[in-house]
Amino acid sequence: MNRPSAPVAELICVGTEHLLGEVVDTNSPYLCGRLKELGICVYRKQVCGDHAGRLREALTLALSRADLVILIGGLGPTEDDLSRECVAETLGLPLWEDPELVARLREYFASRARRMASCNLRQARRPQGSVVLENACGTAPGLWIEWENKPVVLLPGPPKEFCMMVDRELMPRLSARYQSVPIVTRSLRLYGIGESELAERLSAFWDGIGEVTVADYIKDGEIELRLACRMEETQAKKKISDAIRLLAPHLRPYLYATQNTDLAHALIERFAARGLRFSSAESCTGGAIASLLAAVPGASEVLWGACVTYDNEAKTSLVCVSEETLRTHGAVSDQTAREMARGMAERSKSDLALSVTGLAGPGDDGVHPVGTVFFGVSFRGEIRVFERHFSGDRARIRRDAALYGIALSLQTAGLFEALPEDGDPAGDPE
Amino acid sequence: MNRPSAPVAELICVGTEHLLGEVVDTNSPYLCGRLKELGICVYRKQVCGDHAGRLREALTLALSRADLVILIGGLGPTEDDLSRECVAETLGLPLWEDPELVARLREYFASRARRMASCNLRQARRPQGSVVLENACGTAPGLWIEWENKPVVLLPGPPKEFCMMVDRELMPRLSARYQSVPIVTRSLRLYGIGESELAERLSAFWDGIGEVTVADYIKDGEIELRLACRMEETQAKKKISDAIRLLAPHLRPYLYATQNTDLAHALIERFAARGLRFSSAESCTGGAIASLLAAVPGASEVLWGACVTYDNEAKTSLVCVSEETLRTHGAVSDQTAREMARGMAERSKSDLALSVTGLAGPGDDGVHPVGTVFFGVSFRGEIRVFERHFSGDRARIRRDAALYGIALSLQTAGLFEALPEDGDPAGDPE
Repeated sequence: MNRPSAPVAELICVGTEHLLGEVVDTNSPYLCGRLKELGICVYRKQVCGDHAGRLREALTLALSRADLVILIGGLGPTEDDLSRECVAETLGLPLWEDPELVARLREYFASRARRMASCNLRQARRPQGSVVLENACGTAPGLWIEWENKPVVLLPGPPKEFCMMVDRELMPRLSARYQSVPIVTRSLRLYGIGESELAERLSAFWDGIGEVTVADYIKDGEIELRLACRMEETQAKKKISDAIRLLAPHLRPYLYATQNTDLAHALIERFAARGLRFSSAESCTGGAIASLLAAVPGASEVLWGACVTYDNEAKTSLVCVSEETLRTHGAVSDQTAREMARGMAERSKSDLALSVTGLAGPGDDGVHPVGTVFFGVSFRGEIRVFERHFSGDRARIRRDAALYGIALSLQTAGLFEALPEDGDPAGDPE
Repeated sequence: MNRPSAPVAELICVGTEHLLGEVVDTNSPYLCGRLKELGICVYRKQVCGDHAGRLREALTLALSRADLVILIGGLGPTEDDLSRECVAETLGLPLWEDPELVARLREYFASRARRMASCNLRQARRPQGSVVLENACGTAPGLWIEWENKPVVLLPGPPKEFCMMVDRELMPRLSARYQSVPIVTRSLRLYGIGESELAERLSAFWDGIGEVTVADYIKDGEIELRLACRMEETQAKKKISDAIRLLAPHLRPYLYATQNTDLAHALIERFAARGLRFSSAESCTGGAIASLLAAVPGASEVLWGACVTYDNEAKTSLVCVSEETLRTHGAVSDQTAREMARGMAERSKSDLALSVTGLAGPGDDGVHPVGTVFFGVSFRGEIRVFERHFSGDRARIRRDAALYGIALSLQTAGLFEALPEDGDPAGDPE
């Protein structure tokens, strides 16, 4: 049975800890991403606890509908690690203790000067005909079993052991077996448009543009639009570039990158390329803008510094807002934002100085509703002030205000919008 | 059909993004944890993509074996959001457009001065007989349907909307319906101890202390130790308090709270209670400390402000580090950390001024290895400097340096360690 193009895999995550809410599963997303690279589809995943009956049932179901079944977890040394036993029983294969695995286990413990518990011997048992997948950093070997021309794979649950085994042992075997066409992807990044407005603007394109599929994801307050094409690489990249040229006019003026990035990276890279320096005076964002920018490697070329002027006295002392302004207009005002931006620009000798002052809640100031934020931008001697209203809780308002401030800085410097030609036509660098 | 003690829930996570490896599911662990509190068991979870046939199949299977089925995701406004339609079809219930939901949607968009896209009207459709669960921060209402005496619940996928709906709408309904013995939990918070050292110190307690179970979780660089007891509330709280008194001596000097909190909240609350004001001068953390503190409601009582002195010129101009010091000792040095703390203290009139200067990487300065960070603390006229080495990538080093700075500030002010008596003996306030 040679499936030419798209084999279907099903995952089974084993472990009661998943159903008690005690762990967040990062293994499956990692594996799904790697399978996608090989053009292997995942239609379903099942999660079941350490219970033999339910595990056998899950496996039987998966075998009935998938070409490839991958179990994650349940390979530990204790009584409640049932994957080996349940797989052997379901597939009708006898389990035997592999003397070579026993020797390796003894060596593993000896080399670490640790005593091997007798229960560890369970990890040397494997179904007849199975192939051992090396565990580079733990005691549980992985297993690969051919059953009625379907691979059944068992992988250990600890994320480090899991990822290393997927990369070193599983991927080469899968790629040798499934000679399928890979998927090429490329991302566009948008800021300032809601998901439903985007849905409407692109209503004609959600079913795909020729062979290119289109999907959107919300990522920390921004939108990623991902295009994917399953085809030989050069052709796929060409198709995707064509699709981007078709989509771009519908995405204006929100499209700020034609590769996968985020606003903070875009600011640092674009300001650095033009030798521009940035500084901020932040009240309600409390340093979040500076911190987002400082997270980008190479930030020191661009980020001069920032003043977090949380207290009114800090506004006066650090960025020279006049006491008169604070008294007359209040800390959350057009005038204060203007003076903060001016003060920061004068103090810092940066090309662009951004200021933010607003109400993140929970309490308001009796004048403005929670979510009111004033932004000032000083750029090449000119200061402009913007008033915006954000919704949600304190964390959301602060995050959205920080993103807006970064986007506003890019816009003011004329560096926000991306044209399809800007992007690397050869696709995402990653 | 009245199940007296342990109803069984099954979760269905809907969304192709889960099977492409594009998101990590934090919703299910959250929900599983909350269901556990009510004594509701989760035996299985299914994950399926945005595909009507597979979603109906998953639902049919879940209904055949669980007492309660909860679907997560697929309630968005676009064509590939299929949960409403598939549930209605599988249960044989007609879908209708609820005029009240339409009105609410219009109001939601109007109040944000945004235009409502016509596809949003899909979110006003619901199966006959369903009950609406309020969405406090988004447009997709949740739904509760009674089907053959089994609740079928639909919840939105965005984590924030999801968690709020679980807490406010789902939990009260479930707890009213399933009168099981609740689980009382209480958390201890630790900072500065590794997970394996903790494992060793508590080796005698991991199997539980009487009826109290003990489990640890890594949370953003800190450790949460959670005690749980399934018993009538007053008794359970007493048992948990006793267990804490037994554990506490083994946790010194790392135990900083006997309730669930984090370092930033602890600093704001404890400094506020004593009328202390805080400020920071941050280089490699880039404002992350100020931003973590500003995230706590009530921060304005404590946080005076901060100077993000990323550029050397900012160190000189904002917090008066001498050019001589920068030339002789370098920006990453004991002496610079000391002058930054002194400068910040003088400029800010805060009780405690913290400084941070270090190398977060990727490149080093030719003198110190990446991960070297100097901290200065000025408290009541005395300045002390600490050198620490952190490992990991840039993001990890910056985060760990920020947490260390906050913990160091608490320690310097004599406000770090928690004794069991400090805690509210009645348990967590939440």
